[in-house]
Amino acid sequence: MSKDIVQIFDTTLRDGEQVPGCKLDKEEKLIIAERLDDLGVDIIEAGFPISSPGDYKAVFEIAKIVKNATVCGLTRAVKKDIEVAAEALKPAKRPRIHTGIGTSDSHILHKFNSNKEAIIERAVNAVSYAKTFVEDVEFYAEDAGRTDNEFLARVCEAAIKAGATVLNIPDTTGYCLPEEYGAKMKYLKENVTGIHKATLSCHCHNDLGLATANSIAGVINGARQIECTINGIGERAGNTSLEEVVMILRQHPYLGIDTNINSKLLYDTSQMVSDKMGMLVQPNKAIVGANAFAHSSGIHQDGVIKNRETYEIMDPADVGVNASSIVLTARSGRAALAYRAKNVGYELTKTQLDIVYQEFLKYADRQKEIVDSDIHEIIESSNIKIESIS
Amino acid sequence: MSKDIVQIFDTTLRDGEQVPGCKLDKEEKLIIAERLDDLGVDIIEAGFPISSPGDYKAVFEIAKIVKNATVCGLTRAVKKDIEVAAEALKPAKRPRIHTGIGTSDSHILHKFNSNKEAIIERAVNAVSYAKTFVEDVEFYAEDAGRTDNEFLARVCEAAIKAGATVLNIPDTTGYCLPEEYGAKMKYLKENVTGIHKATLSCHCHNDLGLATANSIAGVINGARQIECTINGIGERAGNTSLEEVVMILRQHPYLGIDTNINSKLLYDTSQMVSDKMGMLVQPNKAIVGANAFAHSSGIHQDGVIKNRETYEIMDPADVGVNASSIVLTARSGRAALAYRAKNVGYELTKTQLDIVYQEFLKYADRQKEIVDSDIHEIIESSNIKIESIS
Repeated sequence: MSKDIVQIFDTTLRDGEQVPGCKLDKEEKLIIAERLDDLGVDIIEAGFPISSPGDYKAVFEIAKIVKNATVCGLTRAVKKDIEVAAEALKPAKRPRIHTGIGTSDSHILHKFNSNKEAIIERAVNAVSYAKTFVEDVEFYAEDAGRTDNEFLARVCEAAIKAGATVLNIPDTTGYCLPEEYGAKMKYLKENVTGIHKATLSCHCHNDLGLATANSIAGVINGARQIECTINGIGERAGNTSLEEVVMILRQHPYLGIDTNINSKLLYDTSQMVSDKMGMLVQPNKAIVGANAFAHSSGIHQDGVIKNRETYEIMDPADVGVNASSIVLTARSGRAALAYRAKNVGYELTKTQLDIVYQEFLKYADRQKEIVDSDIHEIIESSNIKIESIS
Repeated sequence: MSKDIVQIFDTTLRDGEQVPGCKLDKEEKLIIAERLDDLGVDIIEAGFPISSPGDYKAVFEIAKIVKNATVCGLTRAVKKDIEVAAEALKPAKRPRIHTGIGTSDSHILHKFNSNKEAIIERAVNAVSYAKTFVEDVEFYAEDAGRTDNEFLARVCEAAIKAGATVLNIPDTTGYCLPEEYGAKMKYLKENVTGIHKATLSCHCHNDLGLATANSIAGVINGARQIECTINGIGERAGNTSLEEVVMILRQHPYLGIDTNINSKLLYDTSQMVSDKMGMLVQPNKAIVGANAFAHSSGIHQDGVIKNRETYEIMDPADVGVNASSIVLTARSGRAALAYRAKNVGYELTKTQLDIVYQEFLKYADRQKEIVDSDIHEIIESSNIKIESIS
């Protein structure tokens, strides 16, 4: 079965960079953009050109160097924004302008002090104007997560008529539940005239920890683009994690959906972005955290040693991690100890293991982690005669 | 409408503590247990008593001091484990033994080298034996996420007959999609004879970033207990984040489901656990990350200043965070600058703001973040005559 491809729209350099205290300089942005291109990202959102001279220059330089991906610039539904973005994107092989406006009642009333008809008009004008500069125009309906579906469908229909190639349905506040976000995509797929002419895109925020699940629910219900960032960075609780959605699709082949990502570069890319932005990745971060493939409890270690698939569902090498590290702590069982002891040169009989294990527990209750050098010491202080297998 | 209550089963001190390098000493465990009790957690899984003398003692001491919550100890389906757990739990007002066995083909074949009938027998024997010590016995079907539903239902039925009060359905490898995990709960709710006598429990791992979504899907489909940890810590990519599931339920009142958690203690508890375990919380962690309520982009800041609900769905105070901090960077717009300038004493006219904003952008392109003291400097170097409003 040939698989459907979901386009990966990386916004690490735009929505991701909207993080307090994490500004990248132009050189850093170029290095990251090059890496994203190698990673196989389909679209790189490089910045918001009107927002500052620095951002403009960065988009312009990124547009020059990116070889494969589409390069995208953000704008509001404002003429000047669109002109400046078009200018910044000039060197791009495949330029895309990303324009849009808020469509929820909260945005229409409080932010724009406007009404629904006027919002549709502004949306149409923005898309049409962007089309005079580039062929590929993505429209965002900001706060779509809290926009009623009937009005959202009307806005989408108008944007498609004006020439939008992609419709971005952002859950701006990270409020939606997966069922709800999936149902929204399904509604649009079924109720927007001309929807076959455009790609529906998921843009989810992680305020409640649901960005990844919402994006997958969107894709299952017909979306074919996911907007995401490396390590899920971004404003507030961040955006959808690129590495998570990519590996979920790859680990569930029965969905029949894949991406163009070279997953072997995920871990290294995660480290690069974390270093350059000074944004820590917590050890228990899915896919790319330091502990993502580390087992410490006895029950689990025993299982992994017997058969890796008992506890691991992916091969760490598939995301660029070399080996699952078996870490010894007071939670570790005899099997893990025997395994590590063997690795450092001791083949223990069952009786010997029992004795060494008691000694091991005393050490492990005192220190957080037992490293290889401790094992020699533990075996020595166990006072058993033991043959080294080296 | 009176709400259904989902029991919060905190396993920070058991599954959470199975983190490489994060061992807590007994005193630290007692402090955390006390806090979990104050937080309103319904069940505290205090440890795995047979695993080490240190763990045994910790469970024993926690059982003594916890006032409200049920105190739970983990065991394998092994007599000695159950006896030791019962002993450790003796001081508890409300003791619970948590016993179980792997039920997936992978576990039955590779880990136990056994067969389905023998696994059911071991499950029944373990629950029955635990019942001779305590009334409240929770049964776990390890790797339930990869166990076929028909066999899982048979195991659950047998466990209920043997006296299990709670059935834990772990997605041990973090492999399930929310739809799938929800469907599993629904299947059990509809196909297990006697299911009304027991509570179904979600125990999800975060290997693909879906633990929170899976737990919520479980609850929507009939589970009434969630097993989780503070900050989602735990082995590999960790467990379900307590703070996320609690706030999702509270932010979606139409679900008609709530917890007994005092959410105002969430942030402080997160900090406490992070400090004691030395496990960093990434800034973009939902609910409790340093940036969870911070806005830095111009568009968003403008919205927040006009009406907080435009971008925030929860009041930071509800999780114990004092204010959403408006951070100024090169992404910030005029509204944010004017807001912060006013806060430090300058009321700017539109023309003045335009001039100061240009100066601000030069600063902001050079430094990651603009703090209050910079604002004075920026206004000074803007060379405009300006009245301080102080």
